[in-house]
This record gives sequence, structure tokens and C-alpha cells, in this order.
Amino acid sequence: MSVFTSESESATGRKDGRNASELRPVSLKRGWIEGADGSVLAEFGKTRVLCVASIEDTVPFWKKRNDDLTGWVTAEYAMLPGSSVPRNRRESVAGKVSGRSHEISRLIGRSLRAVVDVTALGQVTINLDCDVLKADGGTRTASITGAYVALVDAVRTAITRNWTATRDINKIVTGSVSAISVGVVNGTPMLDLPYSEDSIAEVDMNVVQTGDGDFIEVQGTAESAPFSKSALDELLSLATKGNAELCALQAKVLD
Amino acid sequence: MSVFTSESESATGRKDGRNASELRPVSLKRGWIEGADGSVLAEFGKTRVLCVASIEDTVPFWKKRNDDLTGWVTAEYAMLPGSSVPRNRRESVAGKVSGRSHEISRLIGRSLRAVVDVTALGQVTINLDCDVLKADGGTRTASITGAYVALVDAVRTAITRNWTATRDINKIVTGSVSAISVGVVNGTPMLDLPYSEDSIAEVDMNVVQTGDGDFIEVQGTAESAPFSKSALDELLSLATKGNAELCALQAKVLD
Amino acid sequence: MSVFTSESESATGRKDGRNASELRPVSLKRGWIEGADGSVLAEFGKTRVLCVASIEDTVPFWKKRNDDLTGWVTAEYAMLPGSSVPRNRRESVAGKVSGRSHEISRLIGRSLRAVVDVTALGQVTINLDCDVLKADGGTRTASITGAYVALVDAVRTAITRNWTATRDINKIVTGSVSAISVGVVNGTPMLDLPYSEDSIAEVDMNVVQTGDGDFIEVQGTAESAPFSKSALDELLSLATKGNAELCALQAKVLD
Amino acid sequence: MSVFTSESESATGRKDGRNASELRPVSLKRGWIEGADGSVLAEFGKTRVLCVASIEDTVPFWKKRNDDLTGWVTAEYAMLPGSSVPRNRRESVAGKVSGRSHEISRLIGRSLRAVVDVTALGQVTINLDCDVLKADGGTRTASITGAYVALVDAVRTAITRNWTATRDINKIVTGSVSAISVGVVNGTPMLDLPYSEDSIAEVDMNVVQTGDGDFIEVQGTAESAPFSKSALDELLSLATKGNAELCALQAKVLD
Amino acid sequence: MSVFTSESESATGRKDGRNASELRPVSLKRGWIEGADGSVLAEFGKTRVLCVASIEDTVPFWKKRNDDLTGWVTAEYAMLPGSSVPRNRRESVAGKVSGRSHEISRLIGRSLRAVVDVTALGQVTINLDCDVLKADGGTRTASITGAYVALVDAVRTAITRNWTATRDINKIVTGSVSAISVGVVNGTPMLDLPYSEDSIAEVDMNVVQTGDGDFIEVQGTAESAPFSKSALDELLSLATKGNAELCALQAKVLD
Amino acid sequence: MSVFTSESESATGRKDGRNASELRPVSLKRGWIEGADGSVLAEFGKTRVLCVASIEDTVPFWKKRNDDLTGWVTAEYAMLPGSSVPRNRRESVAGKVSGRSHEISRLIGRSLRAVVDVTALGQVTINLDCDVLKADGGTRTASITGAYVALVDAVRTAITRNWTATRDINKIVTGSVSAISVGVVNGTPMLDLPYSEDSIAEVDMNVVQTGDGDFIEVQGTAESAPFSKSALDELLSLATKGNAELCALQAKVLD
Repeated sequence: MSVFTSESESATGRKDGRNASELRPVSLKRGWIEGADGSVLAEFGKTRVLCVASIEDTVPFWKKRNDDLTGWVTAEYAMLPGSSVPRNRRESVAGKVSGRSHEISRLIGRSLRAVVDVTALGQVTINLDCDVLKADGGTRTASITGAYVALVDAVRTAITRNWTATRDINKIVTGSVSAISVGVVNGTPMLDLPYSEDSIAEVDMNVVQTGDGDFIEVQGTAESAPFSKSALDELLSLATKGNAELCALQAKVLD
Repeated sequence: MSVFTSESESATGRKDGRNASELRPVSLKRGWIEGADGSVLAEFGKTRVLCVASIEDTVPFWKKRNDDLTGWVTAEYAMLPGSSVPRNRRESVAGKVSGRSHEISRLIGRSLRAVVDVTALGQVTINLDCDVLKADGGTRTASITGAYVALVDAVRTAITRNWTATRDINKIVTGSVSAISVGVVNGTPMLDLPYSEDSIAEVDMNVVQTGDGDFIEVQGTAESAPFSKSALDELLSLATKGNAELCALQAKVLD
Repeated sequence: MSVFTSESESATGRKDGRNASELRPVSLKRGWIEGADGSVLAEFGKTRVLCVASIEDTVPFWKKRNDDLTGWVTAEYAMLPGSSVPRNRRESVAGKVSGRSHEISRLIGRSLRAVVDVTALGQVTINLDCDVLKADGGTRTASITGAYVALVDAVRTAITRNWTATRDINKIVTGSVSAISVGVVNGTPMLDLPYSEDSIAEVDMNVVQTGDGDFIEVQGTAESAPFSKSALDELLSLATKGNAELCALQAKVLD
Repeated sequence: MSVFTSESESATGRKDGRNASELRPVSLKRGWIEGADGSVLAEFGKTRVLCVASIEDTVPFWKKRNDDLTGWVTAEYAMLPGSSVPRNRRESVAGKVSGRSHEISRLIGRSLRAVVDVTALGQVTINLDCDVLKADGGTRTASITGAYVALVDAVRTAITRNWTATRDINKIVTGSVSAISVGVVNGTPMLDLPYSEDSIAEVDMNVVQTGDGDFIEVQGTAESAPFSKSALDELLSLATKGNAELCALQAKVLD
Repeated sequence: MSVFTSESESATGRKDGRNASELRPVSLKRGWIEGADGSVLAEFGKTRVLCVASIEDTVPFWKKRNDDLTGWVTAEYAMLPGSSVPRNRRESVAGKVSGRSHEISRLIGRSLRAVVDVTALGQVTINLDCDVLKADGGTRTASITGAYVALVDAVRTAITRNWTATRDINKIVTGSVSAISVGVVNGTPMLDLPYSEDSIAEVDMNVVQTGDGDFIEVQGTAESAPFSKSALDELLSLATKGNAELCALQAKVLD
Repeated sequence: MSVFTSESESATGRKDGRNASELRPVSLKRGWIEGADGSVLAEFGKTRVLCVASIEDTVPFWKKRNDDLTGWVTAEYAMLPGSSVPRNRRESVAGKVSGRSHEISRLIGRSLRAVVDVTALGQVTINLDCDVLKADGGTRTASITGAYVALVDAVRTAITRNWTATRDINKIVTGSVSAISVGVVNGTPMLDLPYSEDSIAEVDMNVVQTGDGDFIEVQGTAESAPFSKSALDELLSLATKGNAELCALQAKVLD
């Protein structure tokens, strides 16, 4: 029995009426911040993440020190204090980045670098700031999906300024990348969990894929019970379906 | 000679075609963050600040320790890294809040408390988070103007939850508050400076006023040359005009 | 074609002469720190991690505040400065825990909690300190594998002291947990990568499993090229084999 | 009715017997720290601030990076823990500079730079450390008033060492600067508030002026009630009178 | 041959004309900070340390937690940035207390506690803040010597307020304590080294003693060459002579 | 009467049966960390410290800035959280190095530099990391004693790599250094205190000596009662005996 059967899906009883294999309404608003090198307001249902790309015509100190002239792509993720209820403590006031923010920032950076040829990019650093304005589950995957679009815009800008090692964007950005969360909720594998589902999921997984359907990152966690290989396979199928749809949307907005 | 004469204004040659005593287009979008106790996206020209109010049914530790059962209103201001070009360093990564952010946070909190009766509020804390999504001058004054609206919504919510000491909002919020920047640019006093004007202003002033036109805070700084009493008077007149318009707008969106 | 075929394995040309599906020599020395509630010196080849469990008869503040009387298991991972060449900067001197250490600490804690029933544990906190004395790849998986053994010893100690909610250790520790790294090196899936292989791997994966072979955590990362579903499946098979061997070793040393 | 009328002043009932428009006894002891490039022990009544100027023959990194060869003047303000009762927590122990200290440090720096031509100063940085030994109101204004004198001494020293771009001190220090607090206490505008008055003031204002009476900084805050334009005008008159007296004292001690 | 022989002393050629066994001019100005519970401006030659004692009618959290109702005496030492040339970086700006400051703070606290009976003191904490206004060698020993006097004044104040467990000061402060530096400079043991001698000393030693001449703390360090037992003995003799004189001065100013 | 008399020693009643002047079993395991430039597992009874030496072919920034081409030896001391019961808080998590760790790190560095000629060392920095795996008293003295051996191995390595200014190790390492604790316990001077004795000692002293018996550092502290000159002399005799034995052991393992 497949999770793709409509019948089984209608039985999932998701509060928002979606099928188990259905994404929330997704929107990627390009150019939302005037003057930024690249910017996207990414919305997955109520989740809203602002992704802003900023170009520098230099590379990090640790690259320079090693005479490494290839470029760099990096990311910083954070939640605004008012993005969740109850309010989160502001990390700058706490004086440090939380372990969770660190971990997600690293994941976003790795995911984007998987589709960037830093040699073709040349001595350019692109910073992706992913700030969560409203959190309702899936903030890290919305960040990756939106940041990819902002990254492409920033690379286009960098090419225009003659800062890159090549002018062929396809040599710099070698593929597309998107991400989606999947999980097992009440025994049923589901796609794109909002907070209400995520908080009770038995298994929680974030899957980052290229436009070709290959995997860049798979992070699956048993929240309350270890999971079998077949559950893993089902979840990966759902994620692959979701990422294919996101890839199509990215292509459309970038057109 | 008054700064309100159209002739003198047309001679000011502001890049955006405004008269010296004219505000930029201002918009206060209420309820921009779904689920927040109060939220406003405040826009002054290109400047865009997200103001979110969060209620807690308790008071800070330093109040409790002193058996002080009155409420509290406080604010935190920050700029997103991508809100300006070149990108700012993220304060959480730097490990501390900058002096500038500290100073503005304190100003916003003081300004709002000037129109709140904390005894009538009762054992409730309202946090106002003002995060600058795009900076083009006047971010602190946009923060105050927007935060006031978010505050009123949060107080309404707190009353609904029976958390306040009184149910009469007019006893809790005793007046309205708005703020605007003024400055002397190329020898001419001007209202509501964007970054291009602010960065070359001889005098820079932020004026926080009540809806009745009284002053809550006046902060004038000679950037390149000390200023006379008459220049100060002209700037205060401009600010009073601007704040009157902002007060009217606040009343309209809160209706 | 299976990765378990000897022929294909001998063709892998691993520097240490191992087959692709072979673990390094593994040793788990129990009771290495005299007086600790639980302690293991875990060695995977040259990698050497000291895992020390410390019991407190209380629960964290955030549990107490919510009148949550269930127990807690948490972990902290760090590398000694001299554990690698060149020397790492000491995190206490840097003034903060690195993103990597944070991430691994959280992974260890989650993995152990997956086999602990915190209600049966009762008002007890067990801290697992995993300090890397020598790093040669696989430090996080060695930490999890060793920490499980130290945890069991600590739970036994807690039971002896009458601190737990039940005296039946099988109700508190509901299963065993071990972890191993796998990766694709020069096109070949391999088990238990030392640093020399890890640093050139195309795909890197850490797999945490129960003694029953179910998954607790799967973290796969494409280091230089996205990977297919079939590569993923091969890696998971290798990991399952490795974890089965580690589970047997854990059982033996705990006997 | 003017605040300068003796009759109204005698009615103010200040605990220390002063008229409303009278300064506390002020003393500026030059050279209080042997060997410093400039030093002043500034006393306003019981308030005691040690201002020490230190010269460096270089400019901050952010100037050098931009090939900016003009000089710099900066300040740091702090209160000793024992300067107030109850004792303050030491900021170095807290691990960060408080928002209030940051804000005042920035104000002192800005105020002094308003009378310094950094091009004439040349590649020299002057640090002004203002440490409050005893706090009884008006510590920031005492800091500015004392720091100006220490600054002049340091510039003289820098000229002697041939470190400045010009040897004419009047081209480097283009005017004098002093500051004083004013406020409305029990409905009456008053000059130079000690802590006992400051803590109950309805309006609190700090005014930084040049020796010519022009304004460098005006910071007025409604502590308990918004204030009118006429109250503002009265307070500025009082401040102007006070600053004129301080300017005369500065000139005398620098003679 | 004794270091106390005048002939040998005159041969020491100290820049300030002192004999090898002579203290610099020492002054202990009591009550220098008006309103403080105890305060002393301690001067040893050009070295100038402000010692302020602050009483709290409570004990530290770690004592309360253990139901330990005895009192506590603690100290914090810091150098003002302008106390030395070139200027020191301010520790609050650096974001942490230096190792040296930490070490000296602990030494001062230990030394004072050696003459205080915390049971007789009762539930009272006395903080000693020792801030170096001008550093010219011997700042830690001047801190201890001055802090003792401030401590006695604070204990007297605490007794007056009925906060102590006994009203007999001799049961609370069981002896006096002073400290002095000694060192070997150009082969000659010398008492009370200013910076010019301290910076070239072969051996540097700080000796804390009671008024009875017993040792509380002996810290001797070979700066450039290990030292013999006989050199150690000579240095201790010099220190004992110096501390006897300091003890007499303390008794005089406390009278 | 001497402390070396067997009769008096047998009367000391040490729990571990030692005489007052007897060391605990001491072991210095060289090369304990494979691949490190120098490493020693130092054991004094149950106390276990891992000392790792790491070479860099450069000198600290503050040396370079002054064109100082001599080398440097520095140390960092820390306790693993699980090294004591109850567990210590990890310093990296606390965000700062404790005063105690700072102080001991500085002591170890100073002690080692006393026997190193940094000019002969040349542009090389040697970091000694001393991490306490198990604490049972005397961790700082075990650190120094073990670190000396690791240092010698690192210098040998540096010579092999042609990084030093001279190839004669005796010109670089000019002597040996060891350290031991002594104290007065129940009125009796004793050598090498474990935690159970250290925690009740009236006097506690750490003595760092060269192989020739000269003193590098003497740190004596009256924990509960000031001590006389004769007690000090007795303690120094005991320490000299202990250090002589440690020096012999160091020579043996380095052979």
C-alpha cells in the first residue's frame, strides 16, 4: 500500500485538510528587500522566512591565509524573538548563538555549496541570511528552498559586476537545491509538517535534494520510537515528491 | 520665514521630490504576523521595520524581588544583517548587542512607557521586538511609531485574557506616541530623512511626541557643526507637524 | 553486487588493510575513571574518547518549573586541544562552544534518550561527558557507542542509591544504542572511516541504531557529489552490519 | 516669570540650599594622575569622576583600512562598583558593557569630537577614560566637562611629541565643550541635579554646549510626564547659564 | 651579612634614594568615598589604589543553598585603563576578566578571610573593590593593605546596623593583615619595588602577613633565575620588616 | 625533631599508609597520545593528568609585532567535567575560563619557561595542554611534572624538524623542573596531599623546583591559620625531598 493512494491520505485527518503527500501552499517572493543582492520571502503555510543574499568581492580570512582563491557560500539562520509563541529569547541578548541555530546555519551552507562550484565562482563570498519571521514548522527547509533562489540572484548580480571567475552561471551554480520535512505522525508518513504535527511526530526527517532527485543531506531522527528501513524508504519517497514540486516552483520564479 | 512656505520647500531639491516638511509615504500594516499578540509592519519610504508585541503574564525578576506588582513594557531593537548594504555583522554571532542597538532599544522602551500606566496594566510584561528588515534612515522612529500600534493590540489582547489590573484600555494606555527624525541638510531643516540625507546632515534630531504634541524625548546631535537655539526651534516645529500626521495615521489603523 | 563480497573488498585498498565492511579494532574499557558513576575509554583504531557519566538526584530547572518529575539524560562533547594535529583552539578560551561541538553534543544526547524511559528513570539527571583524547575520524560515533555503556553503569549506580522511579533497569534502559560512520570513498562504500578516508569521502554518513537494528538517527551528507537512493541503501547495509558488531561488544563488556 | 528670579529660587527648597539656577561646587583638578597624557578629577558636589586621556600615535583599524589618515577621539565611561549604594555589579565580571555605559561612552566621544578637527589632529588617537569614583547625579555631564580639559592637555602633549598634523592647537581643538544636567523637579526647572533630585524629576535633560553657547547635544526625557515647548525652553536657558559658568572654569584651570 | 646594614643599603643605588629595606612613602586615606561602608585611598609612592567596602545583609547563593549561615568576604581587583602607560584595554570591553585580575582578586579575598571569623560575622557579605587608579608596582599588596582598613570600617558599620552575629569586633576580625612585595634586583634583595625595579627583578615575591608576623600567603617567583633557600630567607626577613611597619600604620589610621 | 624520622611519620596516620614524607605512587607514561609532538599521562595516586605538547613554527602575534624572534612556551590547564565528584561545569559551556584555571595555566607556563632559553628555542611556540582526567589533589603539580617531560619530547621533535635556533637541546632546555604539594594536616607537615588531606589542611603549599633544588615558584597559603617561619622551613624541606625524587623519575623516563 502506497502513501500516494488518495484513500489512505483522506484518512490522515490533517487539520488543514491536506493529503499526506501534499505540500502546504508555498510562495517564494523574489526581490522582497529592495537593494539587496538577492532576496526571497519564502512562505510555507504560515511559516515565513526572509532569505537575503549579500555579496562580498573577497573570501574569508582562512581562505586567504592558504592562498585559496576559490569563492565561498555561507549562511546564518536565526529566529526573530516574536516568530513563535511564547516569545524566544533574542540570541544577541543571550550573548551567543544557540546550538540549534548553529546546526541549522551549517546545514543551509552545506546544502547550497553542494550546487556551487567555488572555483568557477572565484574570489567572491555570498552570505545567505535566513531570518524566520514566523515559525510554524519547516523553517530550516523553507530557508534552504528560499535561499537557493536568493543565491541565484546574487550570483547573477556578481556576474554583472564582473566579480566571478566565469560569466557562465551554469558553471557556477551546477544544479538546484530544495528541502522539505517529512515525518511519521500517528503512524502515518506525511509530507511538510506544520508545528502541530511536528511536535507529536514519532519520526522527523529533513531531506535536501537536487533538482535531479539526488540526495544532498538526509537527517532522520527518531523522536519517540526507532524506525525501520521500510519507514525510512516511505519517508524518502514522500520527500522526493515534495522536492520535485519545489524545484519546479523555484524554476518558475527564477524564470 | 517659515519652513512651511511651499516656495522655500520646492527649493530644497530633495532627491525624492518631497517638500522639506513632507513625510515619506508611511504605512502601518497591522496583524502582519499571524498569531502574535500584536504586530505591525511599519514602512517609511524604503525603511521597513517589523514590530511584534509579546505578552507574558508575569513581571521581570527585579520587580518581583521588590514585591512590585506593576507591569512592564520593554523593547529590543535590532537590524537584520541584510537590511543594509554592505551587510552588517549579526549581533548574536559577534556575541553582544552593539552600543547603538542597546541605546535604541532603551529609547523605544522609555517612549512607550511614557504613555502606559504600569499600575493599571497589572502583572503583565509586554515585549516589543523591533527588527529592521530594510534600513533607509529613520529606523528608530519608525520602530516607535509602529511599536505603539502593536502595543495597543497587545494590551487589547491582555484585557481579553483578564490579565490586566483594569479592563479600561484608556487607563492603561494613557495617550499615543509617535516619533520622527528631522535634520538640517545643506543648511535647510527637513523632515523624515532617508539615509542619503541623514548621512550628510549637519544636525540630526529624533523627536518623540504624544498625540497632544507634548515631548517625550528630544535627542538632537550636531553631526558637523553646533546648532543655535533658533535652528532647534525650527526643527521642533517640523517634527511636531510630522508627528501630528503620524498620530492621525495610527488612530486610523487602530480604528 | 554486494559490498559484502570479499573480492570487492580486497580491491578497496584501505591503507590499514581492512575490508570495506570491516570495523577498526574497537575497545571499550569500562571503569577507566575511578570513582565516576560510569566511565568508558572508547577506542576505534587510533580514535580515543573518554566517556564519563555523572548522576545528579535532581532534574534540570526547565523541568522543575513545569512540575515535570521525569528524569533527563544529556551529553557534552568536546575535543581536547591536543587531540588533533595541528592543535585545536580550546573552546573555553575562545569563550564559546563551537557549532560543531554543539551539534554533536545534541546528537549524543538524543541518541541516548531514544533508549531511556525518563519516567522510569525518575528525578535523576545523567550527564555524559564525551571528551576526545585523540581524534582519527568517527569521534561522534565512538562517543555514542561508549557513552551507552557508561550510561548503563550510571543507571545501575542510581538504582543502587534508590534514586530511580523503578528498580528494574530494563524498564529504564529499554534497548541498546551504538553508532558508526560509513561513507563513499573513491566510489566505494566503506565502513568506519579513519580521518584519512573521511577527509576525501564523497559521501559521509553517521548511523545510530538500536540493538534491534532499527534507526535512531541517520545523517548523510554529500561532501562533493549528491548521492543516489541505491548508494544510500548500500551505506545503510554497511552501517547495520557494523552496529550489530558494536552491539555485541557492548553486551559483552557490560556482562 | 523667570527661573532666574531669586524669590522663586528660594522657594525651590533644594536640600543643599542652592537656588534653582545654581551649580553645585565644581572642581576640576588637572594632572591628578601622574604620568598620564592628560588627567582631571572632576567633582560636582559629591559626584567624582576621574577623566584620563591617553594618546596613541596611530588610528583605529577601521580608519587604516580605508586609508583614512585623520585622527580619532573616543571615550569609555564606567562606574566603579563601589561608586553607588547599593554596590553595582562590575561590568567585566558580568562579561559585557551595559547599555547605559555604552550609550554614555558614545555621547562623550561625540561631544568631544564636535570640537576637534581630526584632519588637523593627524594620525593620532586620543582615548578618554571617564571612571566614576562616586556617583551622585550628573556623572555623564561631569565626564564631558572634565574630559574636555584632559583632552586639551593630551593634545598639547601630542603637539610636543610632533605627532599631530599641525602644531597650532587652535586648529585642532576648535572650541570648548561642557555639559550640564537640568530637570523639572516638583514642577520647577532646576540646574545640576544631584541623585536625590534626579530620581524624582519629571523631566531630565542633558545639554552639551560649546563655549559659544551653541548646542552639540540635547537629550531631554520625560520621566513621568510629557513636557511642553515652554518647559523645554526654560530648561535650555538654565543649561546655557550653567554651561557658561563651566566654560569659564575650564578656561581658568587650563590657563 | 644582613640586608639591614646601612652601608650595604646605600650601595643599592635605588633611583628614589631609598635603602634596600625601606618602604616608599605610604598613605592610607580613610573615608575617601563619601557614603561608602568603608573606603581607603591607599598610596605607595606613585601607586594609588581605591579600596571600597560594600556590605550586603545576605550571603552568596552557594552558601544559602547549603544552609550555610556564616558570612563571606570577597574581593575584586581591576586596573583602570589609564592607570598605566601605555593604556590597558578595559576588561568590560574585552568581555572578560583577565587571568591576572582573577588571580589577584582571589589572593585579596583569601588574605582578608584569613583574619575574619565568618561565623562571628553572621549572614553578611562584604565586597572589597580594589581599583588601581595609578599603577607603579605593588598594586596587589597595596590593595590588601588598604582593603584591610576598609574592611574594618565596614565591619564596624555592620555591627552598628545589628547585622552581625556578634557585636564584638575582635571576634569578627581576629587579627590584622598587610602585604608587601620584595624582590632581588641586580643581585640585591629589596623591599617594596616600584615598576622600574619590578620589571627587571630576578626574583619577585609577595608576602601577606598578620600583625603578629605569621604568614598568610607567600608567593615567590623566579623571573629570570631560580633562587636558593638563603635568598628566600633574606626576602622573607625584608617583607616581615615592611609588614610590621604597615601594620603600625594601619593601627594608627584606624584609631 | 625532624619530619624525616620514621617514628613520627608512622604517627601521621595517613589513610593510604604513607609516611609524611612519602610520595604517592607516581607514573609518567610518555607517548600516550599517538602522533602528538610530546605527550605524557602523569599519575600521582588516583590523580591523572594528560599533558600534550604541540609545536608551532611561529611565535605569538604580540612577539611578532615587536620583531621579537625568540620562541615561546605556554600552557593551558583545565579539568574535565567528570574528573571530580560532583561533576564540574564545563568551562566552554560557562563561556569563560575560571579564575582558578587561569591561575594554574599561568603557573605552569611560568614554571616551564624558567628552564627554557627562548632565544635558543628560536621562532617556535610550544603549547602544553594539561587536562585533568581524574582529580585527587595535586593536579597542578602533576601538570608541571608531566608537562616538563612532554616539553622535552616536543623540543626534540622541533630540533629534528630544524625549527629551532640551535640543535643543542641543553642550550634550549637549561634544566629540569618538577613540582609537588606539601601541607600541614592536623598539625603535621606532609608531602603530596590527596584530596582528602588537602581539603582539611591548615597550610597548603605548592613548590616548583629545578633539578638542582633551587626554587622556581613557592606558593604557600594559610587555609585556616597563619603559619610560622619554622613551619614554612619544614614544608620546604619536605618539598625539596619530593622534587628530588620526581626529578630522578623524569630523568629515567626521558632516557
